[in-house]
Amino acid sequence: MNTSSSGTSSSAFVVALDVGGTSMKGGLVSDSGAVLLSERRPTPRADGPDAVVTAISDFISHLAAAGDGTPAGVGLAVPGLVSEDAALYATNLGWRDVPATAFTTLDIPVMLGHDVRTGGLAESILGAGRGLSDFLFLPIGTGIAGASIIRGEAYGGSSGWAGEIGHTPVFPDGEQCACGQFGCLETYASAASVGRRYSQRAGVEGVKAEQVVISDDPIAIEVWDEAVEALSLALATYTLLLDPSVIVMGGGLAEAGPALFDPVRTRLVKRLAFREAPPLIPAALGVDAGMLGAALLGWRAAGRPELGPDWTVDVRSAPLVS
Amino acid sequence: MNTSSSGTSSSAFVVALDVGGTSMKGGLVSDSGAVLLSERRPTPRADGPDAVVTAISDFISHLAAAGDGTPAGVGLAVPGLVSEDAALYATNLGWRDVPATAFTTLDIPVMLGHDVRTGGLAESILGAGRGLSDFLFLPIGTGIAGASIIRGEAYGGSSGWAGEIGHTPVFPDGEQCACGQFGCLETYASAASVGRRYSQRAGVEGVKAEQVVISDDPIAIEVWDEAVEALSLALATYTLLLDPSVIVMGGGLAEAGPALFDPVRTRLVKRLAFREAPPLIPAALGVDAGMLGAALLGWRAAGRPELGPDWTVDVRSAPLVS
Repeated sequence: MNTSSSGTSSSAFVVALDVGGTSMKGGLVSDSGAVLLSERRPTPRADGPDAVVTAISDFISHLAAAGDGTPAGVGLAVPGLVSEDAALYATNLGWRDVPATAFTTLDIPVMLGHDVRTGGLAESILGAGRGLSDFLFLPIGTGIAGASIIRGEAYGGSSGWAGEIGHTPVFPDGEQCACGQFGCLETYASAASVGRRYSQRAGVEGVKAEQVVISDDPIAIEVWDEAVEALSLALATYTLLLDPSVIVMGGGLAEAGPALFDPVRTRLVKRLAFREAPPLIPAALGVDAGMLGAALLGWRAAGRPELGPDWTVDVRSAPLVS
Repeated sequence: MNTSSSGTSSSAFVVALDVGGTSMKGGLVSDSGAVLLSERRPTPRADGPDAVVTAISDFISHLAAAGDGTPAGVGLAVPGLVSEDAALYATNLGWRDVPATAFTTLDIPVMLGHDVRTGGLAESILGAGRGLSDFLFLPIGTGIAGASIIRGEAYGGSSGWAGEIGHTPVFPDGEQCACGQFGCLETYASAASVGRRYSQRAGVEGVKAEQVVISDDPIAIEVWDEAVEALSLALATYTLLLDPSVIVMGGGLAEAGPALFDPVRTRLVKRLAFREAPPLIPAALGVDAGMLGAALLGWRAAGRPELGPDWTVDVRSAPLVS
């Protein structure tokens, strides 16, 4: 055949952006999963809701211009309550009902996803959950939220608020969380909480979770033990309710490796009397999970939902607190 | 047209059987949802696993013979680990890998379902969850197990063990449950546990949950208060994890009505700081939920999965402990 194929190269990549963390992570991802470009920018939260939308739009234009041709689509991972077409509500960014089209001036399809669930989608298609249809993705960083992968898709619940495992009451009479509730998992076991609780109890300032985890100071051992106990309780409850095939732990705290996985596994097994514990395994995509998930959303927006399962991706490891 | 239609009347009903409770509940259900016949028989557990299979087969033959023609299918709700084609494992009945075909000598299609999830299916299509795709069905009787309705179908988890909300650790340092774990919801809040805990604490024998619920005896108030607290903790956790649109409470204890629903609702609202509590509503199908769900399975076995949504069903109320 002599027909030209040059027209197709202009749509062989998408713009992927993860604004779920403390900074924005953007990239260009090809239809074979190659990360053609990857950049970070600060999120200008202090400048208000509109400034963040504008910063996202500028970042998308900047990334798109670096590509060879027009992007096929944009995928955007955002916090809060989100549909494919709109960022409905995000307290920490001040958003209410921001339509997907507001995030770019380019005339290309955009699909939004919840930040943690988009990371879970990436782990399920490209990462530690590849080939698994039912599991928990639990990133533990400054906060804790989970993505339940159910029948192959991240589950948002009846109204988009599912996955708040970080605020389940593991210790009914426990400490008050910043959210106002009592005994939340997050207030014991997030990286931020482990650092904070040690610092308060030891009377020193600014100790990081990674220091607490490896310390043999009795206060550090106590604080870490409480974090492990809180996690094992939450995971026992999750296992009994939802019977996941594995639990994928990620985020900064999972970089602690065996110091986290071993004691949580031991306690989880001990909590369960009549069923086996699911394997606890580390996430595979590190800090890129959200961006890679956003790339999958971008390809869905472009009408290519079948892309992903045969990609192989390069992965960077995560810092202890992401 | 002059072709005869007399042949179709012989397949206008299915046999439905629920062997999840202390007795077997069987019936014949038409393709318009009419319960043509409804009977109970004891479950001969004491006689061993094979005797129960034989008793089920005899009951199915008996019910089928009472119908006008040949049943289109059989639906069977059973406890334990179950697939559509086999009862894989049930400790209380001693079953291991019993194929669906073993439950009847009749040459008609059989579909099995998990007892609680089959009840949840019935509540979702015919009962309190009609029209809702994502909710929790929580029957509270001698034990507590739940059925998560997720995207319109009862969810079994990765290996069929989902729904064990009765054994989630609501009080981490709590009493030991019969299952061997500590602080399980069921050991505080099932009808059997409420009766048992009052009886033990008051030093009397055989007090029933329904007496504890309405008593103003300080010990009764304390025991009921702990049951309510355990339930509200489990429901707060479920809500935060899975964001159900409603929570449907059924089983014998739900017959307590406002004495159960009002305090659990109050405590649940109090436990949740940053999101609303889902409505708590009573189940609609009472003790017939399992049998009606089995009828839906029977029609699925018969190749009529579309049946159900337009049925209207008569409902009997449940005894306090079913």
